[in-house]
Amino acid sequence: MNKLELISQIQQKKSFLCIGLDVDLAKIPTHLLSESDPIFEFNKQIIDATHHLAVAYKPNTAFYEAYGIKGWVALEKTINYINEKYPEIFTIADAKRGDIGNTSTMYAKAFFEDLNFDSVTVAPYMGSDSVEPFLAFNNKHTILLALTSNKGGLDFQGLKTDNSELYKEVLKTALTWKNSENLMFVVGATKAEYFKDIRQIVPNHFLLVPGVGAQGGNLQDVCKYGLNNNCGLLINSSRGIIYAGNDKGFALKAKDEAFKLQQEMEQILHKKSQG
Amino acid sequence: MNKLELISQIQQKKSFLCIGLDVDLAKIPTHLLSESDPIFEFNKQIIDATHHLAVAYKPNTAFYEAYGIKGWVALEKTINYINEKYPEIFTIADAKRGDIGNTSTMYAKAFFEDLNFDSVTVAPYMGSDSVEPFLAFNNKHTILLALTSNKGGLDFQGLKTDNSELYKEVLKTALTWKNSENLMFVVGATKAEYFKDIRQIVPNHFLLVPGVGAQGGNLQDVCKYGLNNNCGLLINSSRGIIYAGNDKGFALKAKDEAFKLQQEMEQILHKKSQG
Repeated sequence: MNKLELISQIQQKKSFLCIGLDVDLAKIPTHLLSESDPIFEFNKQIIDATHHLAVAYKPNTAFYEAYGIKGWVALEKTINYINEKYPEIFTIADAKRGDIGNTSTMYAKAFFEDLNFDSVTVAPYMGSDSVEPFLAFNNKHTILLALTSNKGGLDFQGLKTDNSELYKEVLKTALTWKNSENLMFVVGATKAEYFKDIRQIVPNHFLLVPGVGAQGGNLQDVCKYGLNNNCGLLINSSRGIIYAGNDKGFALKAKDEAFKLQQEMEQILHKKSQG
Repeated sequence: MNKLELISQIQQKKSFLCIGLDVDLAKIPTHLLSESDPIFEFNKQIIDATHHLAVAYKPNTAFYEAYGIKGWVALEKTINYINEKYPEIFTIADAKRGDIGNTSTMYAKAFFEDLNFDSVTVAPYMGSDSVEPFLAFNNKHTILLALTSNKGGLDFQGLKTDNSELYKEVLKTALTWKNSENLMFVVGATKAEYFKDIRQIVPNHFLLVPGVGAQGGNLQDVCKYGLNNNCGLLINSSRGIIYAGNDKGFALKAKDEAFKLQQEMEQILHKKSQG
């Protein structure tokens, strides 16, 4: 999917919501556990109930790897289901991969070609040749970790270098890489005040923002500084949506929560368009 | 496996060789391609031929993910084969994972419990709470990326912060984390001169050193500064060993290459013990 298609979808749905499919068998409704593939069945119902409110789905691969082969089968079925039934949806493999050049190419092929995700999250620590193999794929998007919303996020990302904090150096340096137009960036929502500085460095790129909801970030604060003329934001919510209910009506409850966020987003987009 | 068992194995085998099981179907002998599981068959023969010369095996997960479900099955069979037939061998999942707390716990369970690896490589960018969930496992080892041997390695790792280069800050900070005695560090071999500084910060921890051989690092140079009284090094070679041959005798050729490295290591250990 190219960026224009993503932008067009945001405009049509009046939403920039990404739903995190972080499926934990200990948290899903117990009646699903008797299904042959409870993880996929859970995802399928969540997707069917929310696809008109969300523009992106983001399975975090850790939750699938934790169930071994069965988990990978469920991940494959989930991405295939989205691509077949809702091909307009932008898909993100939240894998946070990164390795030396030829090995990064293997990861890129796994997520972009075999699984046919539109994008994958990548860690910057190993530098240019660990990320550029991902950037080489046409109409695929590499979402680089910049500033993360977890407690230890600033341990290294916040270190002041000769020029500026490490996460700003990551943003600036990444812009110099080959095919940097295929980049997006992960920026944690618990630090809304940082978005102002970040938008000065990357005014046009999409930012994937986890941490709204359960992790404590505030949507209005993020949008105040993070929105650009193409929206430029994908706001992720995982637990707040997918675990809103815990009985046979769980998918409807998820839809209700997604609807609340979509409505808030519609207002924000409307206000922005009014100028 | 605890650290004493690893040290004891190094002393018995007079080797600190780690063999990287980075299996690429385009590079393995073609007669294996008709096997039902060519990746596992390749690994099995390499392992059977080299287990007495190596103290560790390190499959890089990218090479397995690239083949989807089949790849994960091959990885699972490989680690089970090592654990059953050669339980004295130290196993490393070269996965370079890292995510926020509860998600890192999922990865840790996947590699330490389900697959029963002795260790996993982890990226530091997300800080303390992305690594500590791995460190919480008893007799399991978390091998943190510090300085990597790829071209872009210094893009960020070499950035000078207020105190010192980023990779040194990673080493120093990691030592303050809970259960830091379960840490090892990845340090690239192409930068042997860095080992002197690194050993001042982490004199006692094991260092996993990729980049000897195909990537251009020199074993003698690394050992000069990197060895400590418990050896403290695991030197990895992947392509130089596993692709030494490309016909039915490939495993013997791999053994020959592993033997050469083991012999060199035996001399180095002998010299060190003399004084």
